[in-house]
Amino acid sequence: MFKSAGIVARYDKEKALQLTEELSMHLNSKGIEVFIEDTLADKIEVQAKAVPLKEMKTDFIITIGGDGTILRTCLNSPKPEPLILGINMGVRGFLTEVEPNEACKAVDRILRGDFRIEKSTKLSAKIGEETLPDALNDVVISAGEPSKILYTEICKDGKSILKCQADGLIVATQTGSTGYSLSAGGPVLDKKMDAILVTPICALTVFRSLVFPTDSEITLNVIRPKQMLVMIDGNYHHMKSEKELTVKVTKSKNVSNFIRFENDFYDRLSCRLLFQGSR
Amino acid sequence: MFKSAGIVARYDKEKALQLTEELSMHLNSKGIEVFIEDTLADKIEVQAKAVPLKEMKTDFIITIGGDGTILRTCLNSPKPEPLILGINMGVRGFLTEVEPNEACKAVDRILRGDFRIEKSTKLSAKIGEETLPDALNDVVISAGEPSKILYTEICKDGKSILKCQADGLIVATQTGSTGYSLSAGGPVLDKKMDAILVTPICALTVFRSLVFPTDSEITLNVIRPKQMLVMIDGNYHHMKSEKELTVKVTKSKNVSNFIRFENDFYDRLSCRLLFQGSR
Amino acid sequence: MFKSAGIVARYDKEKALQLTEELSMHLNSKGIEVFIEDTLADKIEVQAKAVPLKEMKTDFIITIGGDGTILRTCLNSPKPEPLILGINMGVRGFLTEVEPNEACKAVDRILRGDFRIEKSTKLSAKIGEETLPDALNDVVISAGEPSKILYTEICKDGKSILKCQADGLIVATQTGSTGYSLSAGGPVLDKKMDAILVTPICALTVFRSLVFPTDSEITLNVIRPKQMLVMIDGNYHHMKSEKELTVKVTKSKNVSNFIRFENDFYDRLSCRLLFQGSR
Amino acid sequence: MFKSAGIVARYDKEKALQLTEELSMHLNSKGIEVFIEDTLADKIEVQAKAVPLKEMKTDFIITIGGDGTILRTCLNSPKPEPLILGINMGVRGFLTEVEPNEACKAVDRILRGDFRIEKSTKLSAKIGEETLPDALNDVVISAGEPSKILYTEICKDGKSILKCQADGLIVATQTGSTGYSLSAGGPVLDKKMDAILVTPICALTVFRSLVFPTDSEITLNVIRPKQMLVMIDGNYHHMKSEKELTVKVTKSKNVSNFIRFENDFYDRLSCRLLFQGSR
Repeated sequence: MFKSAGIVARYDKEKALQLTEELSMHLNSKGIEVFIEDTLADKIEVQAKAVPLKEMKTDFIITIGGDGTILRTCLNSPKPEPLILGINMGVRGFLTEVEPNEACKAVDRILRGDFRIEKSTKLSAKIGEETLPDALNDVVISAGEPSKILYTEICKDGKSILKCQADGLIVATQTGSTGYSLSAGGPVLDKKMDAILVTPICALTVFRSLVFPTDSEITLNVIRPKQMLVMIDGNYHHMKSEKELTVKVTKSKNVSNFIRFENDFYDRLSCRLLFQGSR
Repeated sequence: MFKSAGIVARYDKEKALQLTEELSMHLNSKGIEVFIEDTLADKIEVQAKAVPLKEMKTDFIITIGGDGTILRTCLNSPKPEPLILGINMGVRGFLTEVEPNEACKAVDRILRGDFRIEKSTKLSAKIGEETLPDALNDVVISAGEPSKILYTEICKDGKSILKCQADGLIVATQTGSTGYSLSAGGPVLDKKMDAILVTPICALTVFRSLVFPTDSEITLNVIRPKQMLVMIDGNYHHMKSEKELTVKVTKSKNVSNFIRFENDFYDRLSCRLLFQGSR
Repeated sequence: MFKSAGIVARYDKEKALQLTEELSMHLNSKGIEVFIEDTLADKIEVQAKAVPLKEMKTDFIITIGGDGTILRTCLNSPKPEPLILGINMGVRGFLTEVEPNEACKAVDRILRGDFRIEKSTKLSAKIGEETLPDALNDVVISAGEPSKILYTEICKDGKSILKCQADGLIVATQTGSTGYSLSAGGPVLDKKMDAILVTPICALTVFRSLVFPTDSEITLNVIRPKQMLVMIDGNYHHMKSEKELTVKVTKSKNVSNFIRFENDFYDRLSCRLLFQGSR
Repeated sequence: MFKSAGIVARYDKEKALQLTEELSMHLNSKGIEVFIEDTLADKIEVQAKAVPLKEMKTDFIITIGGDGTILRTCLNSPKPEPLILGINMGVRGFLTEVEPNEACKAVDRILRGDFRIEKSTKLSAKIGEETLPDALNDVVISAGEPSKILYTEICKDGKSILKCQADGLIVATQTGSTGYSLSAGGPVLDKKMDAILVTPICALTVFRSLVFPTDSEITLNVIRPKQMLVMIDGNYHHMKSEKELTVKVTKSKNVSNFIRFENDFYDRLSCRLLFQGSR
């Protein structure tokens, strides 16, 4: 069924590089053509083609790292996005599916079709006519400067609904509801709860978060100051000043597709919640 | 079009009783048959039939009071529920539509069909085989005793998803998201965002609220102590002990139907949020 | 040095009763006269005098249970309060000091003077001329009826400072800052931070908590409804209606004295925080 | 009594510059020598000496602007700090005392000694041997880069007490408790409540804030990433990387001295809280 696989890994962890080599050999032995991200190429010694992430048009991509590695992969991989299997080698592993010692076994299950696909809605953000990369977790706006408060108007489907003074605003997907939005006091959306979440960061408002239908168009107009920083999934940054201090966010046509075995959403949520607050 | 109207009012406010009389006469003069809640009957002097709320099968019901009066009316009126026009004579008037001085004009608009209907999803709660009255705002469980903490298991569609220690748990509708759930740290759901919200009350959890699709079955199992109090819309109380410490909540077949003119959801939300925190 | 000891234990746990017997015999063997709470007397078979908690004028009291058992002991023991050693046999053990298997060793350390005393400030509450029992954790006011909101004026040293709509208000000590107040969103006060904390329960205010100097007089005036329930440490209840809906809270002359070995405040806090949110 | 006054104003508001001129002339007419901040000098036409803020050793300083202008003045004025009168010409005016139309009358009251002095504790922050400028509101640490989470160890008096994952940490004074810390969920400290507040920013912790005695030494050790940005009162920035990722915060020897007439702390707090959440 599957003929090619890509590997994206953290460069800064020796173990991630070792696992890259191990998985490459394992995949090769199964007759799968392996592509690794070009930035990894000179750090490992295996038989694999090096390509930029943007050109990794493989049947599936294995990410070795934490949620950050997955977010970066979804942000930059070719569209429609290849299936993604996340191997957890990070501090937080909410989006990842298996632990490193289960990696080869997981690959075997994929190759014999023994998995399910979890589709995750993404958000599309526009500044004027310019479309930014789709967000798997969130589109965040801030002043882009420490300690500068943002005064923003929130609009739904072209109609002003609330104004808000805050460090910034998070527009999150269902997936993103367990990320930054959660830390900022937002609710957790059930896996099947397709919606758009708007959560202010450190606001003196009495509401914590707003939940909109997934087909809403959410527009954020920055009234003060005359600048804004737009971030996509904590990876992509876009600074604007003076003009066009407006971001329009809608559901994207694209989705991310995660390979899942047993773990369900609330199992992973419990782990994530328990991890916190440790000494 | 409309032939009959009911009136439900706060008994403890002289002005509410006066407005009841005024509206009765106005409705009569337009050829509408007027029914007033029987508990009001001996407090006012007008030509109107006194009936219990449960039998008020009129084309529409006018409530004179705050949100509490509307909640009580929706809880007790015959099903399917008559249209409701809320006249604000309470401290909080989030569900109400017009101020007392606009009451007669509002009636005229209703009679000539110049209004829209806002449908509001309700929740149905079951304890064992017993079905409780539908909730417009929320189903709340607590220990029913001050300072007793509830240890509860939250299940979705029969599957345990999280456990929670709290003063209680709120299962809220979209309408209820601006009520008790909001005070407990829950998100505001957009008017079109049909969902079921679960918000713990004073919990030491890192999550504030959970949002589920509207077709979910949410079950709350009280593990400790051996008692629970179930409240519907802050009005209906049901105390259970020893056995059957389980509540099942699903979307109801019934809806509440509010008569609306101009005011939209976010206008009313802004008022509600602004009202708070005053000295 | 010490000649007498009291024992207070949970009645509902077999293990607590067993430990009561074991400790009684151990204390007797060391020449210490043992008093047990009279309600325990018919449940255990040991040589010990049964006295009501109010008359337990011993050199120290051993509590076997959780924080609730300690709070009940501090509330009801004779003043000035005997030293207290808390043995943890409860769900939450923030105030307790040792685990059951260390109980006899802990007694030995006490008898040879190898411990330190941790003094804990208490609060004194007055309704009119009537003085309520001192609070180790908190004085809580509510409407005493589910879903009734309390509208309260907060005064400091006789001067009105803020008004607040909430389910209730918690006036907490430093010790209480890790209890109910924490669940309601209040801060944790350092062990040496003597202060009075006022934390609203489920309020739509933008402030979470107020911190006052320990010599302040905090007065809560209930404006609506015409009733209030005052609770001390979750144990003592006092319902008032119509008249005198005012509670005055000041620092008490009495303190509670806990026997401590190694564990410090933040070790216990970390345990308490980690315990939460588990599935 | 008073012989000299300084004026510090926002440059970007025409009205602030006009008031600077008006107050200069008024002060001159009363025989007071007037110094204006040098950066204002070429924007106004009055008889006044231009000096840098650092050399403004006058009997008192009048600030024309919001809280930001006061914070900047306290940060940069010579030590011990001159008395400060804040005239409110900003969005937030929690620290300011009078409105622009009362400015001349306020000056007259000052000159005849008809005012009281409100002393405000400041914090002193050190990185290694380097002492940063004192903070009136807060010392804030973050990663200095959007969306980077800080993993920090909090120590009190040299002892590790808690670890925390957050966007950043706020160490605030009593004055600062109504500023950034409040937005981040911290408590309000009473004017007489001298304490050090530590409030995490967007943390998945179950505690919101920690309150320490004012004589504590609070040390923040950044464990990850290998960088930190330290901000003082939102004005002074200090970026560190690789080494010395530790800030020590203690009470400063210096205080700020505000000129106050009638307004008390809770009057100003009520205004500040009410201002929020408006549409």
